[in-house]
Amino acid sequence: MPLDYQAILDEINDALRPELGQEGKVADYIPALARVPADRFGIALRTCDGFEAASGDSNEAFSIQSISKLFSLTLALQRVGDQVWDRIGREPSGNPFNSLVQLEREEGVPRNPFINAGAIAVADRLVSATKSHAKTDIVELISSLCGDKVMIDQEVAQSEAANGYRNVAVANFMKSFDKFDNNVAQVLDVYFNQCAIQMSCVQLARAAGFLCRDGGHPYRGKSVVSERQARRLNALMLTCGTYDSAGEFAFLVGLPCKSGVGGGIVAVVPETLSLCVWSPAIDESGNSHLGRKALEMFVARTRLSIF
Amino acid sequence: MPLDYQAILDEINDALRPELGQEGKVADYIPALARVPADRFGIALRTCDGFEAASGDSNEAFSIQSISKLFSLTLALQRVGDQVWDRIGREPSGNPFNSLVQLEREEGVPRNPFINAGAIAVADRLVSATKSHAKTDIVELISSLCGDKVMIDQEVAQSEAANGYRNVAVANFMKSFDKFDNNVAQVLDVYFNQCAIQMSCVQLARAAGFLCRDGGHPYRGKSVVSERQARRLNALMLTCGTYDSAGEFAFLVGLPCKSGVGGGIVAVVPETLSLCVWSPAIDESGNSHLGRKALEMFVARTRLSIF
Amino acid sequence: MPLDYQAILDEINDALRPELGQEGKVADYIPALARVPADRFGIALRTCDGFEAASGDSNEAFSIQSISKLFSLTLALQRVGDQVWDRIGREPSGNPFNSLVQLEREEGVPRNPFINAGAIAVADRLVSATKSHAKTDIVELISSLCGDKVMIDQEVAQSEAANGYRNVAVANFMKSFDKFDNNVAQVLDVYFNQCAIQMSCVQLARAAGFLCRDGGHPYRGKSVVSERQARRLNALMLTCGTYDSAGEFAFLVGLPCKSGVGGGIVAVVPETLSLCVWSPAIDESGNSHLGRKALEMFVARTRLSIF
Amino acid sequence: MPLDYQAILDEINDALRPELGQEGKVADYIPALARVPADRFGIALRTCDGFEAASGDSNEAFSIQSISKLFSLTLALQRVGDQVWDRIGREPSGNPFNSLVQLEREEGVPRNPFINAGAIAVADRLVSATKSHAKTDIVELISSLCGDKVMIDQEVAQSEAANGYRNVAVANFMKSFDKFDNNVAQVLDVYFNQCAIQMSCVQLARAAGFLCRDGGHPYRGKSVVSERQARRLNALMLTCGTYDSAGEFAFLVGLPCKSGVGGGIVAVVPETLSLCVWSPAIDESGNSHLGRKALEMFVARTRLSIF
Repeated sequence: MPLDYQAILDEINDALRPELGQEGKVADYIPALARVPADRFGIALRTCDGFEAASGDSNEAFSIQSISKLFSLTLALQRVGDQVWDRIGREPSGNPFNSLVQLEREEGVPRNPFINAGAIAVADRLVSATKSHAKTDIVELISSLCGDKVMIDQEVAQSEAANGYRNVAVANFMKSFDKFDNNVAQVLDVYFNQCAIQMSCVQLARAAGFLCRDGGHPYRGKSVVSERQARRLNALMLTCGTYDSAGEFAFLVGLPCKSGVGGGIVAVVPETLSLCVWSPAIDESGNSHLGRKALEMFVARTRLSIF
Repeated sequence: MPLDYQAILDEINDALRPELGQEGKVADYIPALARVPADRFGIALRTCDGFEAASGDSNEAFSIQSISKLFSLTLALQRVGDQVWDRIGREPSGNPFNSLVQLEREEGVPRNPFINAGAIAVADRLVSATKSHAKTDIVELISSLCGDKVMIDQEVAQSEAANGYRNVAVANFMKSFDKFDNNVAQVLDVYFNQCAIQMSCVQLARAAGFLCRDGGHPYRGKSVVSERQARRLNALMLTCGTYDSAGEFAFLVGLPCKSGVGGGIVAVVPETLSLCVWSPAIDESGNSHLGRKALEMFVARTRLSIF
Repeated sequence: MPLDYQAILDEINDALRPELGQEGKVADYIPALARVPADRFGIALRTCDGFEAASGDSNEAFSIQSISKLFSLTLALQRVGDQVWDRIGREPSGNPFNSLVQLEREEGVPRNPFINAGAIAVADRLVSATKSHAKTDIVELISSLCGDKVMIDQEVAQSEAANGYRNVAVANFMKSFDKFDNNVAQVLDVYFNQCAIQMSCVQLARAAGFLCRDGGHPYRGKSVVSERQARRLNALMLTCGTYDSAGEFAFLVGLPCKSGVGGGIVAVVPETLSLCVWSPAIDESGNSHLGRKALEMFVARTRLSIF
Repeated sequence: MPLDYQAILDEINDALRPELGQEGKVADYIPALARVPADRFGIALRTCDGFEAASGDSNEAFSIQSISKLFSLTLALQRVGDQVWDRIGREPSGNPFNSLVQLEREEGVPRNPFINAGAIAVADRLVSATKSHAKTDIVELISSLCGDKVMIDQEVAQSEAANGYRNVAVANFMKSFDKFDNNVAQVLDVYFNQCAIQMSCVQLARAAGFLCRDGGHPYRGKSVVSERQARRLNALMLTCGTYDSAGEFAFLVGLPCKSGVGGGIVAVVPETLSLCVWSPAIDESGNSHLGRKALEMFVARTRLSIF
């Protein structure tokens, strides 16, 4: 008997909504994020066959933050292929996501593309490959993937830039190891803008669709990335997608996920569906508190863990 | 059309055998391991339905080393359930497998049960739970799982003990944080002996069968662990099972794996099959060089990656 | 006009006695140390000319703890000379005194002989040089230097051994790097016993006399160490003698010092005098709270800083 | 019998000149430094009484680099007094001088004012205290101290800025911890310029004169800093003045020293004299190879070690 996804998402929404605002804390390092109301919860999915289901605040746009790292890496794979791995590792970091310690020990090579240092290194590659178009190209890729025109929240982008001293430090640190090609300010402009893209759960569930379709575009005949690349993106999400809680997510959820401090989490069930859950209050590890609970419930109910 | 596993394993054996002895290096920190000939390659699998295939030196016994951590953790889950997680984390370590740095920063709580510190903490739990029977109980669990009586190589066990200063350091370090219940020597005796168990690829492929059967015993009606525990063991293998190369294995192979410095690697395709490959020459990360290549070929050929 | 040392010590005693028990905390990691009353303060000095002055509880014996590292190093210099530096550095550690992190990064070579790892490495050298006599030889050296027969508090020694897991870890860790010659238990027996020696301020001021006399014995014609060695011992005390507060002590006191968690601090004014202050309550860095204040007062009053 | 300083300096010059160019390596991270000929050696001293002696290339100007940290700290003590210590520690770093690891662990508080991070923090204080005059004020202080008008080598300053990514990283990192008041570029402009000041051994020996005169100006009646501050500057030099070799310098030389990668080392004999030695080839720790040897010879010959 096929799963009734709409019923399952409604059930999760009903179960978790009473818990809104009880645990976790909305990210407050910049005002534009701190203003987001904590009492939001949305969830949406899209199957490989194009069936969609959604519940709660699933059409409300939020700041995708680190989820953008998934798409900037996808764009880099399209443009430079495996060269992207010349200066970026593929191992979980085992340290808080913004640590410089490891970057120092490994001489300017970030452990993976989903920690800040790694995503900034990806942005450096994109600037080399696209010149001044990197920012536009990321927005266009995402817009194409979700079938809507997505926008950058300029206030968020500017606040990120105004408070991004640690990211400036990280980029200059990589440059000191000669592992960085472009002007730091230009690269960080790309990075701060990609983090400030606004999307809803429905849009993100659609945009991640290529990851459950062996790289095939969610809406068009062509491929976004190769099958092999799609599988590897999923592997990276599983081992590195949720800050220093990747082991815990694998253990408790068992799906490739990429989260952001805006409270969104994108998850993939290979060959089956892509999903996005959003609730702004995050836990100490930077992942949405109810988002994680929702994914645990989803997997318990559907038995769709990859393990 | 069903996969012809026997043909696939033979094909891998034929393709890799010419490469024997070319790359990697047999572990040589103790004489009994250093004596193992580098020119061995074996591979074996067993499906959930009980079909078996094997190729190469698949019946030759080797030192399972860290693969034993999978079985000691399984035994601990049987005996104390989730209490095992009171003093052991579930995150990839992001550091070489024998590092004390992280153990210090995290005040005596090992990052996961598959690094040495974590496996020693598991052994401490087993000693508490089984008194003087821990060693026998591990051997009996494995023997039951593979349907053969497995043996401990006493020379290896004694050599491990004679050279195990770092493990003695690790155990005493945990004890200094009050995170260790039993006598250090007694616990390490369990640990050094479990590492010295000898098994063949065929035996290990069988013994890991419960991991692809939702925890069900490979040969008998009863459960080894619950379905949830089996899935979580697979998740741990994927994120932490191959030393500091877990990200790389997930990226290139895409299966839960547990490796040992004896050159063995156990892999699981959930709901489908369990597999073991062995070739003694290991790479810098401690994983079998040809074992990894074999797994990459197997997944490329069968498309059985979980991603 | 010559300084009236007796008046100065009395003045310090009078000024600080009202503060007894107000700040800091008696070391309590073993019962025999935890029992020491907090309300003790003693100070004593001996000039190069043999003049002595003392005030407060200056004849009460206390556990010299890490101050013993000064004498075990002196003995090692007598027995093996500069060979002692083959496996021990001479740099401040910049880390809490019992850290294994640095020992790992520097592959089993302790940063200096005054951190635990370094003192254990010194004890290893002494065991090699003196066979089973190391413990006796340290006691005899100190007894000769202070002109009294000093004793080991067996209860303290046994408690140190019973709680010394971290030191066991450190010794085994060095052994894993092949930087340790003898049986760990035998070496630690020396180390735990030397820490348990009981001495008074008067005795310690006398015993350190060779350090302000270019290495000359405080009571006899012969040399304890060469002039060069004496100066270098003073240099080591200044840069490494007070755990992770060596910079602070140099800055605020400006004299070579060696402290112990028993609350004692030995200080040296080269060419002038040796001094010992004791008060059991220690601060977070492991140094006697009032001991430090007393030294600051002494230097402010006498202007005997070396800087 | 008074020491014949001129003869001693000539003797050192004669002894070491044949070794020029044999060991160590001229700093080459910027072209203007790499061009400096390796075959230079100069030494100069000035006693508290105003007697001067010099030998070798003692009037040739070189890039003072990190020696400038001594003077910028002196200026900061003049302007803000002990407030300078609010955000800067006084402990040896125990790590290579440009490490970010420790800065991270200690949340943006540099360990001491003589590592790069600490000197940049001092420059931040100076910018707050002097507005746009910090650069000029440092030059004027030094000019006043040595009685000559000193100059900034603009090519060096610009090269430092063009290659100073790690310093940009360090400054932004401190700013990310909210431990930095001013614009990063403005502060680094001060820092890069102070490092590019050109001085000779004779000028530096004079300029450091206040450190051996209890803070009194080398040429005028007034004080540069208080006696207490002068003693504390000497203590800092001894524990932190020679990168990660402070322990070694204390052990082998036994004088407060501040070195720079340009090959200069300033040393102080409190109450007696100030000295500068210069030879451009530096060892792995960043200190002048022959400069260190010269200081060892000077102390062996004069017995002026402070220990």
